[in-house]
Amino acid sequence: MTNWPRMNLAAGPVEVPERTRRDLSKPVLYHYDPAFKEEFAHTSDLLKQVFRTNYDVVIMQGEAILGLEAAAASLIQPGDKVLNLVSGVFGKWFEFFIDKFGGETIELAVGYDDAIDPEDVRKALNANPGVKYLSVVHSETPSGTHNPVREIGNIAREFGVLTMVDTVSGLGSELLSPEEWGLDVAIAGPQKCLGGTPGLSLMSISPAAWEAMEKHANPLRGSFLSILDWKDAWLENNRFPYTPSVSEMYALESTLTQTLEEGVERVAWRHQTIAKACREGVKALGLELWPVREEIAAGCVTAVKMPDGLTDEQIRGTMRHRYGVMISPGYGDLNGKLFRLGHMGMAAHPTMLASQLAILERSLKDIGYPVQMGAGVGAAMDAIEGWDDAA
Amino acid sequence: MTNWPRMNLAAGPVEVPERTRRDLSKPVLYHYDPAFKEEFAHTSDLLKQVFRTNYDVVIMQGEAILGLEAAAASLIQPGDKVLNLVSGVFGKWFEFFIDKFGGETIELAVGYDDAIDPEDVRKALNANPGVKYLSVVHSETPSGTHNPVREIGNIAREFGVLTMVDTVSGLGSELLSPEEWGLDVAIAGPQKCLGGTPGLSLMSISPAAWEAMEKHANPLRGSFLSILDWKDAWLENNRFPYTPSVSEMYALESTLTQTLEEGVERVAWRHQTIAKACREGVKALGLELWPVREEIAAGCVTAVKMPDGLTDEQIRGTMRHRYGVMISPGYGDLNGKLFRLGHMGMAAHPTMLASQLAILERSLKDIGYPVQMGAGVGAAMDAIEGWDDAA
Amino acid sequence: MTNWPRMNLAAGPVEVPERTRRDLSKPVLYHYDPAFKEEFAHTSDLLKQVFRTNYDVVIMQGEAILGLEAAAASLIQPGDKVLNLVSGVFGKWFEFFIDKFGGETIELAVGYDDAIDPEDVRKALNANPGVKYLSVVHSETPSGTHNPVREIGNIAREFGVLTMVDTVSGLGSELLSPEEWGLDVAIAGPQKCLGGTPGLSLMSISPAAWEAMEKHANPLRGSFLSILDWKDAWLENNRFPYTPSVSEMYALESTLTQTLEEGVERVAWRHQTIAKACREGVKALGLELWPVREEIAAGCVTAVKMPDGLTDEQIRGTMRHRYGVMISPGYGDLNGKLFRLGHMGMAAHPTMLASQLAILERSLKDIGYPVQMGAGVGAAMDAIEGWDDAA
Amino acid sequence: MTNWPRMNLAAGPVEVPERTRRDLSKPVLYHYDPAFKEEFAHTSDLLKQVFRTNYDVVIMQGEAILGLEAAAASLIQPGDKVLNLVSGVFGKWFEFFIDKFGGETIELAVGYDDAIDPEDVRKALNANPGVKYLSVVHSETPSGTHNPVREIGNIAREFGVLTMVDTVSGLGSELLSPEEWGLDVAIAGPQKCLGGTPGLSLMSISPAAWEAMEKHANPLRGSFLSILDWKDAWLENNRFPYTPSVSEMYALESTLTQTLEEGVERVAWRHQTIAKACREGVKALGLELWPVREEIAAGCVTAVKMPDGLTDEQIRGTMRHRYGVMISPGYGDLNGKLFRLGHMGMAAHPTMLASQLAILERSLKDIGYPVQMGAGVGAAMDAIEGWDDAA
Repeated sequence: MTNWPRMNLAAGPVEVPERTRRDLSKPVLYHYDPAFKEEFAHTSDLLKQVFRTNYDVVIMQGEAILGLEAAAASLIQPGDKVLNLVSGVFGKWFEFFIDKFGGETIELAVGYDDAIDPEDVRKALNANPGVKYLSVVHSETPSGTHNPVREIGNIAREFGVLTMVDTVSGLGSELLSPEEWGLDVAIAGPQKCLGGTPGLSLMSISPAAWEAMEKHANPLRGSFLSILDWKDAWLENNRFPYTPSVSEMYALESTLTQTLEEGVERVAWRHQTIAKACREGVKALGLELWPVREEIAAGCVTAVKMPDGLTDEQIRGTMRHRYGVMISPGYGDLNGKLFRLGHMGMAAHPTMLASQLAILERSLKDIGYPVQMGAGVGAAMDAIEGWDDAA
Repeated sequence: MTNWPRMNLAAGPVEVPERTRRDLSKPVLYHYDPAFKEEFAHTSDLLKQVFRTNYDVVIMQGEAILGLEAAAASLIQPGDKVLNLVSGVFGKWFEFFIDKFGGETIELAVGYDDAIDPEDVRKALNANPGVKYLSVVHSETPSGTHNPVREIGNIAREFGVLTMVDTVSGLGSELLSPEEWGLDVAIAGPQKCLGGTPGLSLMSISPAAWEAMEKHANPLRGSFLSILDWKDAWLENNRFPYTPSVSEMYALESTLTQTLEEGVERVAWRHQTIAKACREGVKALGLELWPVREEIAAGCVTAVKMPDGLTDEQIRGTMRHRYGVMISPGYGDLNGKLFRLGHMGMAAHPTMLASQLAILERSLKDIGYPVQMGAGVGAAMDAIEGWDDAA
Repeated sequence: MTNWPRMNLAAGPVEVPERTRRDLSKPVLYHYDPAFKEEFAHTSDLLKQVFRTNYDVVIMQGEAILGLEAAAASLIQPGDKVLNLVSGVFGKWFEFFIDKFGGETIELAVGYDDAIDPEDVRKALNANPGVKYLSVVHSETPSGTHNPVREIGNIAREFGVLTMVDTVSGLGSELLSPEEWGLDVAIAGPQKCLGGTPGLSLMSISPAAWEAMEKHANPLRGSFLSILDWKDAWLENNRFPYTPSVSEMYALESTLTQTLEEGVERVAWRHQTIAKACREGVKALGLELWPVREEIAAGCVTAVKMPDGLTDEQIRGTMRHRYGVMISPGYGDLNGKLFRLGHMGMAAHPTMLASQLAILERSLKDIGYPVQMGAGVGAAMDAIEGWDDAA
Repeated sequence: MTNWPRMNLAAGPVEVPERTRRDLSKPVLYHYDPAFKEEFAHTSDLLKQVFRTNYDVVIMQGEAILGLEAAAASLIQPGDKVLNLVSGVFGKWFEFFIDKFGGETIELAVGYDDAIDPEDVRKALNANPGVKYLSVVHSETPSGTHNPVREIGNIAREFGVLTMVDTVSGLGSELLSPEEWGLDVAIAGPQKCLGGTPGLSLMSISPAAWEAMEKHANPLRGSFLSILDWKDAWLENNRFPYTPSVSEMYALESTLTQTLEEGVERVAWRHQTIAKACREGVKALGLELWPVREEIAAGCVTAVKMPDGLTDEQIRGTMRHRYGVMISPGYGDLNGKLFRLGHMGMAAHPTMLASQLAILERSLKDIGYPVQMGAGVGAAMDAIEGWDDAA
């Protein structure tokens, strides 16, 4: 049997605090038990606070890909023009959903190590009148980059274009706000920067998005993919469209509570600070960051170019099997071209960054790659200013 | 804040053993961690043993309604004739899926307190040449009844008709076998007789069902609803179509392990024995069973007619709020007409049946309904013969 | 391997709520971590509230027998006269401690199915001038009886006699108060009516008791048995005399918090109500209570005379092995003469009492003892008036 | 409220694996439940394997100081000559016990940064005929040193002297064997190198030690301090002298199981390897080790001289409060003179050593102490050769 890792420092699902997992393990309630309904309502309130929104929130009962597909399925009608922004694997994938539900994709793409320029969005919208929706990935986890979603969202609003925003690994790494940022449907995941368990889609829905779903020629209802089912059943009638994942909801309540106890501002600052320190550590080891510019590097994960002559199995396999530290490979088209150092949720902390980089150094040495032992950890720790867990 | 119940003796999700929940709370692994992939594969093997099948099994990452919709979405093509057997709320609901995916529904229905006669199925298939699929609910949880799925499945096979079988609350209450029973797509849930946590669909797929999905004019791929995605990704390439619910998989592994440790035969016997005892208890209290004949009463839950003059809130509310025992109301059209005493998973045990009936008696007394205190528990305990936890 | 019980309804240690055990399992802190010291201090404050005292409290790090021996060892000097009240096995045992530390025992004894009459205490104190200490067991768990400790304590105070009171299974079953009841050293356990884990001694110490310990010719210090070590180290200097049981302290904090959330009054009422109901159930089955009068029956456990012709193994063995319900045998000299139905902590609830009595009935039937099935549960449930978990 | 630490890297109690704590939280059994007795017996067997002994083992139900006092109390008679070896705070403390129980102490002492030379033991025994017992601390946790107990034990055996050995933090850091090392009463703790929870004394007793206890003029029985009670009750009659700490026993079973799964040899190697690496890290930072020679440095903890001009609060306070890493101060007389980096149990791993040293470096920088960032971690990781968690 494979040994278990000591630390899950991958690109998500990530380490989940024990407190969350103790809450996850609470006795399972019947979903119509009044105590569970109360808990579900409370958790929705907490989610609003973490999203910093007054929009309705919906918690769909499947991993975030469900929320993404649901958004496309609920909004897009045959013939709708959708401007799809592509700066990575996940952005590209969304085109499949647009096609599937009959939309017409207009693509604005950059390299998978780059980010979208908001001005190009403006140009594209000017050049393509009649665009109804814009889809964008906030944090491209596979590339370790992030897009300027705030600027993009506000440009979309100018054009009356509704936005579908994949902020699965973005929520928690920046201080977003659906209203101010112009996000109509925002889809996040608990298992990334919030440090929760996978299995749920966290969604914020603007009134305009609700209107579009309801005015759809064939509104999507009576389906696992339906967002409207949650509006009809839960939001308006305090019932569930089907049995929710009771235990996952306990974990989500715990995750959101902890996020708010710490403060969303501090959570975002913590991710940015550790991401910056991680990049300093990587550079000090003579390795290259994958993103073309540091300003577009993500707060959730640091993507590192695979050093010449080394394989994914050598680096990641050594770290994982010998020392118990799990990091992530390149995903999809990027496999073999990079590896990814996750620092989300509780992993966004100096202690775990130190472990991660120290084991990276030790593993590089094991496989014969020249490395100055301690250089990465030293540079990273040096870059962490103003940390204070007790504050 | 609402007080938590002491015992969840509802119609599912049900009480989950602590052992399962301790396993649920294990550290969250990255889904591509080798230890997790090993665990996922092992869990699939365990599921085969619990299903008593050599067919492929698929574990979809959402509550069983996902598996049911996925089956319909993956198999039914516009114009396909589907014989839908209806003996309750869930059977009736399936017609919605048939319609949604363009099928033509041929309904064979009985009262919601009755069960399908296999001979009527034969007649219907004779009367309706060209039927491609048959859909049936094994255990109609809302009615507390079960259908003779084995006989029905074998008749369908005679006619070359593929079956879609909702055995969500059936698996564990009877000794089923997809091959022998003629089940092409069987969908079960962990949160019923297996006593696990909700959030997954447990599916067994026959070769003929795979073939039908692949020969579909527009095979369903690239969707949360796709069963083929699991075949392409996991079964054939040891990859995941998307991030699985890591913690739920731990719980499922634990649930299945415990089921096999006890033995599926004993688990089924235990449910039947407790269901029988529960019915004796109900009758001894002068209450009426909902099913028209005891032979069709379900193994998972006992449905009881609402006594004249009493309301759901009186009975269930008193049991729940004063004494902490949660049972289930009538569902959908049956609301107010019956209440349901669940005895699934770890609740299928004399200790919990005794609590349930004693609190029912005490609550009936509290609300002024004439009841001979102890009569129900006494009759129920009397009916339990041959129990031996140590065996 | 032996099957695990479903329910621990014994005489203690008893079932511990999951919430407590989740808290028990928190990460282990270094005992001088400031977070642990804070938790220890907070737990001491909670204990004061549960004891309803302003006296100092001490939490010794071993099961209550440690606290009992420590009290004797710390107070008694060679030649000290100690009036030892004996109404059961535990009361008798204390004489051993008196002897060990050089005291002179004056015994006031009744049958092990009876309780001490306070007037006899007055007579004994009048008859024996110079008595320095009085030792008494509040709740004689082995006999299922309780002594009128309040009256006894106040008589002792009249005579200037210090009291050592074993309230191990008493705290939580009655509304005691060291000041008002005249208890100088009271020793309780978390694992009885408070429903916590075993491994700690909960002690309340009067100023007079502290003075006696310090004026001892050879004050007991530098020992695991020393109470003064806790005064010197913890109470006065915020240090530990040795490493405390960190996890047990977490559990105690949780136990006490839950006790206070429910309210000590309600906890005491709950024990008395269930004890009364249990006695009604036992009598309705034609069995005999062990105590000579019901007024002296304990709130924590109901002792039942062994029916003629039956053995402990038959009754308890059947209940435990076949049905998973653990109850307690007679202890020491009482072994074989009685069995004990525990109802402490979370077991003091109608649901668990129903299970216990139903399984007792079913087991009696299994072994051929004539019993009217349901009579015990019915009478017990009937006797429970005014229960309301939601209140 | 004080923030909780992220990592407990102190001198014990140390971080306890979650698996152990999940086992700790199992339902609490009545101590005479057959399942608990089976578990207790099984745990005793596991302890024998971890001690690598065929001697009897006793598990006393209190922290190791209980076992140490119990050994002295059970063995020493007034007038017995005891050679007490002193190389630190704990060794010195034992003299108090010798005095308390009437023994005559002959002290062989070295500086608290040094270790006992076995030849000096031989000389002392030659010079002091009639010595009956020898007491020694294997691993002096406060000093971060260890004594050559094997050599010392064998010399004692030559002289017919019985040994009392405090190996509280020694067991697990070296491959000891009571028979081969000449240990008559060895006392260990679960909360040190085994990485378990505090609250128990793990003892191995030689036949000669049993004989001495039984031939004691006043054999110690009927006390929390009695070892013979465990012999009479548990070893010979399968009963408990009093209620054991049920949950702590679960944790111990889990701890010992994990130790044996890993292999005691690997556990010892792991501690020595990490201790060596830690020392390299400390030296690379320009700090000084406390022990006079590296060969006597302990495997469980690394003691570091307090740098001139720095205070304990500066170093440890910064590490703990800002970064959540708890390490230990100097204890007793050594307070302020040194600080201690713990690496016991699961903390004896490269990931946690890296965190510890990185946070030490960062904290030194925070308080203005000159340090080359990364130097300590680099040197430590460099020193770890042959690590393989997957082996």
